[in-house]
Amino acid sequence: MRFLHTADWHVGKSLHGYDLLNEQQHIFQQIEAIALEQKVDAIVIAGDLYDRSAPSEEAVSELNAELQKLNLHDQLPILAISGNHDSAARLATGDAWYSATQFYLHTQLSQAFEPIVIGDTQFFLLPYFELQAVRNYFGDDEIHSVKVAMERIVAQMQDHFAPDKHQVLVAHFFAAGSSHTDSETKVEVGGLNAIPVDLLTEFDYVALGHLHNPNALKNPVIKYSGSPLKMSASEAELQKGVRIVDSAIGESTWVPLKPAHDVRIIKGSFDDLMQKTDEGDRDDFVVIQLTDQEMIPDVMSRLRQVYPRIIALQRVNGPVQMKIDTTIDPALDPMQLVAKFYDFATDGHNLNPEQKEWLTQSLQRVQKGE
Amino acid sequence: MRFLHTADWHVGKSLHGYDLLNEQQHIFQQIEAIALEQKVDAIVIAGDLYDRSAPSEEAVSELNAELQKLNLHDQLPILAISGNHDSAARLATGDAWYSATQFYLHTQLSQAFEPIVIGDTQFFLLPYFELQAVRNYFGDDEIHSVKVAMERIVAQMQDHFAPDKHQVLVAHFFAAGSSHTDSETKVEVGGLNAIPVDLLTEFDYVALGHLHNPNALKNPVIKYSGSPLKMSASEAELQKGVRIVDSAIGESTWVPLKPAHDVRIIKGSFDDLMQKTDEGDRDDFVVIQLTDQEMIPDVMSRLRQVYPRIIALQRVNGPVQMKIDTTIDPALDPMQLVAKFYDFATDGHNLNPEQKEWLTQSLQRVQKGE
Repeated sequence: MRFLHTADWHVGKSLHGYDLLNEQQHIFQQIEAIALEQKVDAIVIAGDLYDRSAPSEEAVSELNAELQKLNLHDQLPILAISGNHDSAARLATGDAWYSATQFYLHTQLSQAFEPIVIGDTQFFLLPYFELQAVRNYFGDDEIHSVKVAMERIVAQMQDHFAPDKHQVLVAHFFAAGSSHTDSETKVEVGGLNAIPVDLLTEFDYVALGHLHNPNALKNPVIKYSGSPLKMSASEAELQKGVRIVDSAIGESTWVPLKPAHDVRIIKGSFDDLMQKTDEGDRDDFVVIQLTDQEMIPDVMSRLRQVYPRIIALQRVNGPVQMKIDTTIDPALDPMQLVAKFYDFATDGHNLNPEQKEWLTQSLQRVQKGE
Repeated sequence: MRFLHTADWHVGKSLHGYDLLNEQQHIFQQIEAIALEQKVDAIVIAGDLYDRSAPSEEAVSELNAELQKLNLHDQLPILAISGNHDSAARLATGDAWYSATQFYLHTQLSQAFEPIVIGDTQFFLLPYFELQAVRNYFGDDEIHSVKVAMERIVAQMQDHFAPDKHQVLVAHFFAAGSSHTDSETKVEVGGLNAIPVDLLTEFDYVALGHLHNPNALKNPVIKYSGSPLKMSASEAELQKGVRIVDSAIGESTWVPLKPAHDVRIIKGSFDDLMQKTDEGDRDDFVVIQLTDQEMIPDVMSRLRQVYPRIIALQRVNGPVQMKIDTTIDPALDPMQLVAKFYDFATDGHNLNPEQKEWLTQSLQRVQKGE
């Protein structure tokens, strides 16, 4: 059978203060169109459906609407698991009713071992898990690494392998050998918690979520789909898309997605960038890489006049060379002195009332010798 | 047909710091047992399923489990609406799937007008609404009161009345003439927002939620079920139960519920109360009404040794007569003076570190003449 492999939707995420809901709606329409056009037999979502444990009402309404559309309107089976960003308990709401229309949503480790059969394929849906949950499930406190945990999990899955079916694992973790981007927590993707890839070779295909880079693993049948959208400045150069998988042969093809507004890097001197006013979509999320080294007064607000959605400003030629403003009188009142320095160091910003309050209190403490 | 009428479950509520989840599980078991024993054709839940817009994971798991049990395991139809404590958007998760097993959950005003038919009865499920939602729905900005809003809503429902069926309204609001308890916000149940009872007489039965007192209305067919548990000290004397309704004749019978731990008032002098150590369940939630007028040192912690779950301490014979402690030396350091006074006024409590920090800063400000 053929299925669409996606993951890391992160519904409700914002990008440096910019709400991504409209971007996500746009990309979900493309995913739906691809699924229908490719006549897939199911959609696999490998975790991190939401961006956070307690998503906003808008995020909840958006994900609910998308799942309804795919499963109830388009009558596409859905195979989904919870990721580390999801609350397993909250995401599980409704799951007992969903399976009546072939929407399988697994959020507990105990659900991972009974395969979902669609056509010629057994799907093992393994939600994101903590080591303690594995110890509890197997009643074995000696499970001290995710490697050992995964060996036990795979062994128990193999007991359910049907010889006349293909086997697909859907999971959300960091598999060894993969790289990672900074929109995932470093601790979670650290080497200690990596699942060795060779533990996964019993499956005809492994549909992974967690890493946002679809090319993080080079294995032909153990694949990340990546996120459908660029979720941070560090993902600006990554490909975004979905995989269409033929489970019989474990082969997948890549179908790229086109965002409503791209995340892109723009590099150049300040003066050059201020002139390129007609290049690309003004509403794209841009990472500005300035080649200048000197101070540029009011740099951010001036750049924003040309590029309204700047998500990062980087100085690619090293730190700014600070000029000392010799016009400031060091005999000033300490409060005024700090305010002047702040104005200088921030290219013309004033202290806000909270900062002033904090500063006043701090100066008082210093004067009292605390 | 016959149905069970309940409301105001407030799953996830805590009572003065005491988590009520276990109490709620206990009472839901009774509701289930009553529904099965009475062989009802449906269960009506008239709003406030959760206590808050963003319930905890434990609360979500508990409500999900109860609804699954009733609808999927016991195969009882459920007719439910969102109340003012619920997030309509979050509660709606799964609703499009629920109706396949006759679990009807309405959270939007627009869903109120298409009746759900079970047996000989049409159910109109009207979720809690804001006036603005009514204006938007009817496209009429001249709707300036809940009275006018409800006239429009009922008129549109009447267009869908089938002459050969009985009509039941399920709603969550304050109907005029009812009293209220302080676990509901005063503003919301104020007279300005009352729905006049005479607007509701077109229905054979009106199953209301919002007020926790089942006897808040005296009308024979317009009824609050009240909450299944006592949710505040002010509800200590209220009856708690569910109604079994025969929609053909609009008649309802009251079935009381027995809590795992009651909320009860204990009145007497401090000395008497300290001796009644064997009366009632020690783990009940108690409202202590002290008849004493004088100061009692360390009163709360001493009472807690006998009654571990005190939720309120009231002095029924007027304010405490404060004795002046003439042993305190007014020449003490201000910090020590305040600490002594706090100890005296609170019957022996010490300032905690945060209070001390706050006090130190305040005294410093006073000394600097701010």
